[in-house]
Amino acid sequence: MIYAQLGTDKYALRLESGDDILQSIRQFATAKRLTAGLLEGIGSLSRVRLGHYDFKTRKYSYKTFEDDLEILNLSGNIASMNRQPLPHVHVTLGRRDFSVIGGHMDEGSSANMVEIGIWKLPGKLVKAKDEEIGLNVLQLARRI
Amino acid sequence: MIYAQLGTDKYALRLESGDDILQSIRQFATAKRLTAGLLEGIGSLSRVRLGHYDFKTRKYSYKTFEDDLEILNLSGNIASMNRQPLPHVHVTLGRRDFSVIGGHMDEGSSANMVEIGIWKLPGKLVKAKDEEIGLNVLQLARRI
Amino acid sequence: MIYAQLGTDKYALRLESGDDILQSIRQFATAKRLTAGLLEGIGSLSRVRLGHYDFKTRKYSYKTFEDDLEILNLSGNIASMNRQPLPHVHVTLGRRDFSVIGGHMDEGSSANMVEIGIWKLPGKLVKAKDEEIGLNVLQLARRI
Repeated sequence: MIYAQLGTDKYALRLESGDDILQSIRQFATAKRLTAGLLEGIGSLSRVRLGHYDFKTRKYSYKTFEDDLEILNLSGNIASMNRQPLPHVHVTLGRRDFSVIGGHMDEGSSANMVEIGIWKLPGKLVKAKDEEIGLNVLQLARRI
Repeated sequence: MIYAQLGTDKYALRLESGDDILQSIRQFATAKRLTAGLLEGIGSLSRVRLGHYDFKTRKYSYKTFEDDLEILNLSGNIASMNRQPLPHVHVTLGRRDFSVIGGHMDEGSSANMVEIGIWKLPGKLVKAKDEEIGLNVLQLARRI
Repeated sequence: MIYAQLGTDKYALRLESGDDILQSIRQFATAKRLTAGLLEGIGSLSRVRLGHYDFKTRKYSYKTFEDDLEILNLSGNIASMNRQPLPHVHVTLGRRDFSVIGGHMDEGSSANMVEIGIWKLPGKLVKAKDEEIGLNVLQLARRI
């Protein structure tokens, strides 16, 4: 993983062949002590483990795909939980026939080449487990 | 809907179970008097009404989908029209089998849990009806 | 193509009927001397040439689609190479039946109406050909 800082609050990252995408983002956030961020990326990967969450059973189901897949869009955010950076990332992937698959990104991916832009946010985004829905969710102070 | 302001020009929102996504964004923009913004989000929803616009007939066709769908990406912007905030949002959605659907987001969705980042833009984005194509489009002052 | 500058580092663009999307972004970057940027967009197009890159053969395969397709998400960045702006853009597209296609965006598209937000980044993003993978990749100074 190589990167550059652009101004005070933005980063460009390039993941290289074999990099685990979610692990790389977490590793970057840890190295830079990022406690809040938004991210967007495009590129290509050769393996991905996708998740889909069922709100009734409150369980993820997973499936691994292995092929050169265009990353049409990688979106997400970086929060912190138990003082560790916690990236949450979803991906949309284009196949050879231009059909599309996607899901919640788990560990277990392998990048071909990925370009990611990160906006560092001022302050902190904190997540905590919501027992009712079974997910780690953003703790935000104000309500409308 | 809960939220936090991060710095002078960014917001993080979390929509909760049952929140209508488009209505929530409009409600937030109204409460914060947002007249220009860009937004990105991920999450999950349990119902969505998607639109597809035909530029020949100049009509939207709509279809409603009901299931737990991962929001792989929610993208759009906030402008104003007739002094009311007007969000324009498209969504890409992942099914249980990791196939993907998507379209123009209409009212009538129901969030499971959605995380949205909003960049407030300085100045105003104004929309007006374009009679030729039948859509509300951004009025921007300069041309290349 | 019409546009507005919003603050010191953001632009909103609207592409009009028939505009080639990739060419328009390159033309805009050239006119504004953008050497680094991130971009996000939504809208609709009537024709698109999509690419998929095979990392074994190191070749793109292309296919052209002609229909009114919702641009669910257009993501990418602007770098420079040989002193020319080089946009890299991927698109996710929604069909009439709400199924989705997508890929690497090549020249040869035709916009119906596209709204794009561009973040100008401070400094430069430079690309150079990577002979091993056969693609132009970001040259970034630091490594983790």
